[in-house]
Amino acid sequence: MSFNDQLINSIESKSSHVCVGLDSRYDKLPDFMKYGVSVSEAIFTFNKEVIAQTQEFAAAYKSNVSFYAAFGHEGLEALRLTNAFLKENFPSIPRLADCKRSEMGESVKMVKMEIFDWLQFNCVMVTPWFGFDTVKDYLADVDQGICVYVHDSNPSAPEIQAAVLKNGQFLFEYLAERIKNEWNKNGNIFIEVGATYPDAMKRVRKIVGEDMVILTAGVGAQGGKADDLQGQFGKNHARFIVNSSRGIIFAGQEKNTAKEYFAEVGKAAKNLRDQLMSIAVK
Amino acid sequence: MSFNDQLINSIESKSSHVCVGLDSRYDKLPDFMKYGVSVSEAIFTFNKEVIAQTQEFAAAYKSNVSFYAAFGHEGLEALRLTNAFLKENFPSIPRLADCKRSEMGESVKMVKMEIFDWLQFNCVMVTPWFGFDTVKDYLADVDQGICVYVHDSNPSAPEIQAAVLKNGQFLFEYLAERIKNEWNKNGNIFIEVGATYPDAMKRVRKIVGEDMVILTAGVGAQGGKADDLQGQFGKNHARFIVNSSRGIIFAGQEKNTAKEYFAEVGKAAKNLRDQLMSIAVK
Repeated sequence: MSFNDQLINSIESKSSHVCVGLDSRYDKLPDFMKYGVSVSEAIFTFNKEVIAQTQEFAAAYKSNVSFYAAFGHEGLEALRLTNAFLKENFPSIPRLADCKRSEMGESVKMVKMEIFDWLQFNCVMVTPWFGFDTVKDYLADVDQGICVYVHDSNPSAPEIQAAVLKNGQFLFEYLAERIKNEWNKNGNIFIEVGATYPDAMKRVRKIVGEDMVILTAGVGAQGGKADDLQGQFGKNHARFIVNSSRGIIFAGQEKNTAKEYFAEVGKAAKNLRDQLMSIAVK
Repeated sequence: MSFNDQLINSIESKSSHVCVGLDSRYDKLPDFMKYGVSVSEAIFTFNKEVIAQTQEFAAAYKSNVSFYAAFGHEGLEALRLTNAFLKENFPSIPRLADCKRSEMGESVKMVKMEIFDWLQFNCVMVTPWFGFDTVKDYLADVDQGICVYVHDSNPSAPEIQAAVLKNGQFLFEYLAERIKNEWNKNGNIFIEVGATYPDAMKRVRKIVGEDMVILTAGVGAQGGKADDLQGQFGKNHARFIVNSSRGIIFAGQEKNTAKEYFAEVGKAAKNLRDQLMSIAVK
């Protein structure tokens, strides 16, 4: 089954548009997780607790690789164990590698060995700067996904991405067209558009059509408004996922016991699921 | 001393424009390096031999992080040891992390911990897709460098990078202007332009001026001609470096003993140094 179909199935079967961002940086974990265990054990145990509370509501899990690599071998081992745990226990939930790489040719073989074989993800997120070469060597393995950053949520995102082209298009519109018409030959490419630019979101949805999944981020603390997402959920309301990282995994930061902490994590995921579902079907 | 000054000093003091690409993927190492030792030991020993033969001609070393991460903990440990060895023994030769990342904000803190603190590089290479936010959190540490990919050497590089803007500029020209006039506030940003697009190289050099260092790649097997680089070396012929990876580190692949193998590695580095110097001063 193509990656995009796996992702859509996951959204539909969970009735959820929540992507849980497992950006579980060690320095932000609650103290009670760290006592008497290695860095790797602390992160992995934390992630297993987060997964236990959120798997019911998670259409996907996304992990920023740098948040683990910052803690060296121990961090990366925790990431590997987390993905292996997900693959074993919840194989139908996609595992997205938020690594914002741009590689090509022989280097893509190396990235696949790192991201898919070693770290056990089944989807890689890439920047499109180097053009089609960046995605083409991933296309043959249709069960593995590629998410392309089309328009991001950060303040300077428009500087390059919304440059105005000779034909009047924004660059991100041209890119969205290329992805829809040229790049996504095998149905395993989907795209990211930041929630902080609702106009860009509308333009991209129009270009890529109702079938393609859009991943968004930046709702909440970064200023994106959930209500602005209305109308963007695509076919059967099942072509849209919203990432939340800190808002879910650190939701229990005021709590002093593991039980209370992770109860808040589960509540945060459920609340986001309910909020998004009410917008999706409005 | 700013990173760019360190890099220029290195080029001038070595009288060399050679950047040695330590893309020492384990599967391509000669068999005699692998016998009876761990993956990590094999790669690290190989790199130390390469460094012994090339340090006289190396203005910089560049390592593609994925080529090590593909081999898991063992690969990354070899990379860490290699950079620590370079830092200890040849501290004036810059160590470039070819990782083609695009991160911002809190994630940049994580990348710094990974790339600078753990893996012991002193320069990170980034794609500009997310705009100024991608570089701004690196600027304060002027002794650490940022290399921005402006126009690459791969076949599809022009698809995005040479999109024509409303004002008639190519996107990479607009980017080069932004970097020169807005991004490079503290003198620690330099740029990459592929040798396979000599017209783009000339345009970029004109925009960024004679002071900025340009790193190029793609000479030789990828089709870039060394002679096309004439006139691009900048102020005092010391604002230009040419990366060569396989052409140097695997130059001994026809040889069966370590002694013969690494003699070829040294010869290849010296030959490239001599060739580039003759073009630089033409």
